[in-house]
Amino acid sequence: MTRFDFSIHARDGKARTGTIRMMRGDIRTPAFMPVGTAATVKAMKPADVRAGGADIILGNTYHLMLRPGDERMARLGGLHRFMGWDRPILTDSGGYQVMSLSDLTKVTEEGVRFASHLDGSRHLLTPERSMEIQRNLGSDIVMAFDECTAFPAPHAVAAKSMEMSMRWAKRSRDGFDGHEHAGRAALFGIQQGSMFEDLRRASSQALTEIGFDGYAIGGLAVGEGQPQMFEVLDYAPGLLPEDRPRYLMGVGKPDDIVGAVQRGIDMFDCVLPTRSGRNGQAFTHDGPINLRNARFAEDTGPLDPDCACPVCHGWSRAYIHHLIRSGEILGAMLMTEHNLSFYQQLMAGLREAIGEGRLETFARAFVGRYRKDG
Amino acid sequence: MTRFDFSIHARDGKARTGTIRMMRGDIRTPAFMPVGTAATVKAMKPADVRAGGADIILGNTYHLMLRPGDERMARLGGLHRFMGWDRPILTDSGGYQVMSLSDLTKVTEEGVRFASHLDGSRHLLTPERSMEIQRNLGSDIVMAFDECTAFPAPHAVAAKSMEMSMRWAKRSRDGFDGHEHAGRAALFGIQQGSMFEDLRRASSQALTEIGFDGYAIGGLAVGEGQPQMFEVLDYAPGLLPEDRPRYLMGVGKPDDIVGAVQRGIDMFDCVLPTRSGRNGQAFTHDGPINLRNARFAEDTGPLDPDCACPVCHGWSRAYIHHLIRSGEILGAMLMTEHNLSFYQQLMAGLREAIGEGRLETFARAFVGRYRKDG
Repeated sequence: MTRFDFSIHARDGKARTGTIRMMRGDIRTPAFMPVGTAATVKAMKPADVRAGGADIILGNTYHLMLRPGDERMARLGGLHRFMGWDRPILTDSGGYQVMSLSDLTKVTEEGVRFASHLDGSRHLLTPERSMEIQRNLGSDIVMAFDECTAFPAPHAVAAKSMEMSMRWAKRSRDGFDGHEHAGRAALFGIQQGSMFEDLRRASSQALTEIGFDGYAIGGLAVGEGQPQMFEVLDYAPGLLPEDRPRYLMGVGKPDDIVGAVQRGIDMFDCVLPTRSGRNGQAFTHDGPINLRNARFAEDTGPLDPDCACPVCHGWSRAYIHHLIRSGEILGAMLMTEHNLSFYQQLMAGLREAIGEGRLETFARAFVGRYRKDG
Repeated sequence: MTRFDFSIHARDGKARTGTIRMMRGDIRTPAFMPVGTAATVKAMKPADVRAGGADIILGNTYHLMLRPGDERMARLGGLHRFMGWDRPILTDSGGYQVMSLSDLTKVTEEGVRFASHLDGSRHLLTPERSMEIQRNLGSDIVMAFDECTAFPAPHAVAAKSMEMSMRWAKRSRDGFDGHEHAGRAALFGIQQGSMFEDLRRASSQALTEIGFDGYAIGGLAVGEGQPQMFEVLDYAPGLLPEDRPRYLMGVGKPDDIVGAVQRGIDMFDCVLPTRSGRNGQAFTHDGPINLRNARFAEDTGPLDPDCACPVCHGWSRAYIHHLIRSGEILGAMLMTEHNLSFYQQLMAGLREAIGEGRLETFARAFVGRYRKDG
């Protein structure tokens, strides 16, 4: 059994398509990871997440450490058994969400002190504790604990934040190694440096010196907008080892993903397809549509006529409009299933286009139609 | 194609097991009909409702006439196509729910005037309009429009209410007949008479003179409690034609159903498995349990060790406790699926026991264990 192996099958410009082999299964790249925050991809059974095309899902360390608690999860046999998903799971480090969701946070060199958003209980999250939690969860891909630099940040602030993240990356590596779990799991480092190339370069060098199985690009999709994100992505992936997977955290909209793949990204996660689905927004090849809109009340067509998912073959926009308007749970279920499938079909299309050397044509057609400006 | 045919395969005491044949499929009796109020069995895909063992579901005329509206439903091709359920659907008449859910209701001989609980719009529901709505929905089993007599009612009040319901039953018959839809659908009359045998007898006679495909017992499960309900069920089913299906409306708890089957009932509907499932209550052979309870936090066993459903084979009480506590949609999904399957497994057990002439033994064992007093 292979702990972690990444092989690139084809390249097209800066883009690559390949396979990550892990003990719990293969991950086809470029890959989209549905977000399963609280040990569930919201409104989806694991078998349907898989049927939609997912090879790997993401779990949130911050949420799970608070409820049900990582030690309880370990006693219950780990996250996979708990939620009934037997393929790879990537867990984030908790660093991003502790800052965005909890109260009374205080960041020091040691780590982050905070109060739970659920019950106000006090906690300390450090690189070492984050590694312990992710180990207790039984994560397959463990993320180093870092600070997601706030945007916008002056160079000096971004540098200081990145440098602490690099010291935390080393402590994460040390906290991860030496446990039996490290023989089954992979550890990814996270590049920071805000919008500054010199900082991204220094961060990449620090991470490479420590050595990781894969590398994430952090600190993007934080409000900078697509043009500035793409500016960073024009150089940031190339600063990371060419033979390791590159993971762009928290991205994004379909056209963000296309542009990021063109710039050399291999892995993505985002709450957009699941969260916006619950709120009534469906992704289609012609851009997003909001099913609450009265114009869909008697629309007998599918959510997206060019979608291959079971929802588009079973139910009309009129029906889903009715469900969303009525606050029915089935509305959230069908919208989530469609949106995740839409994302996975996009990833499959990107992989195929890279394999056949026609990514630019594919991207231009997809983005042009999606934005209706092509 | 048979419009409606009921054949009894076996009898055991007053109980019977048989098959209702209709154009959209067979209904094995005794049958439990999951409630699909607003064109969805809440938190369930139709295929999973079917996989759980349902031959027929129930739709609510009151809800559907208001949203999405019966005329819109007709334009969209009817309820079956709208919601993606191709087997039989029984629709209630709207009479019960207009009284329990709407505002400013006024009952006259003509019908019921009311204001929508959704937007306050004014409506008039009559026997003729109820037939029209159920026709627009494309119902397979149409229920006569009646007044569910409030409980408790003095004899004179119950008599007056029942007599009006019988006049409405005739108007329902007349409103149903003469349309093309009547060649594909069945019409059921509803026995009323509160807790009075003479009134139930007079009601049965009035209905039989009009003539229906099947007969419901209405006005029970309205707060009288199981002993008094069983007292009425000791005689009420026997007042109805022996060769027609008998449907006990809105019942009930698992032990209610067992006792009613022993008294000659063939069909049931109830929101209990779906609604209480969403609220965290699971039905088990050892009685109901509430998954919110902290004692389930580390319980690795299934909801019910003797249940054959996919939920009991896939997830633990600990996981479902976590989902319910976290307000996760998947909690409602899994609880509903289990509860509906539990009910359908009970119906299958009852059918088999009747077929093998051992209903009393089955009932004593089931109810004794369920109530923990056996």
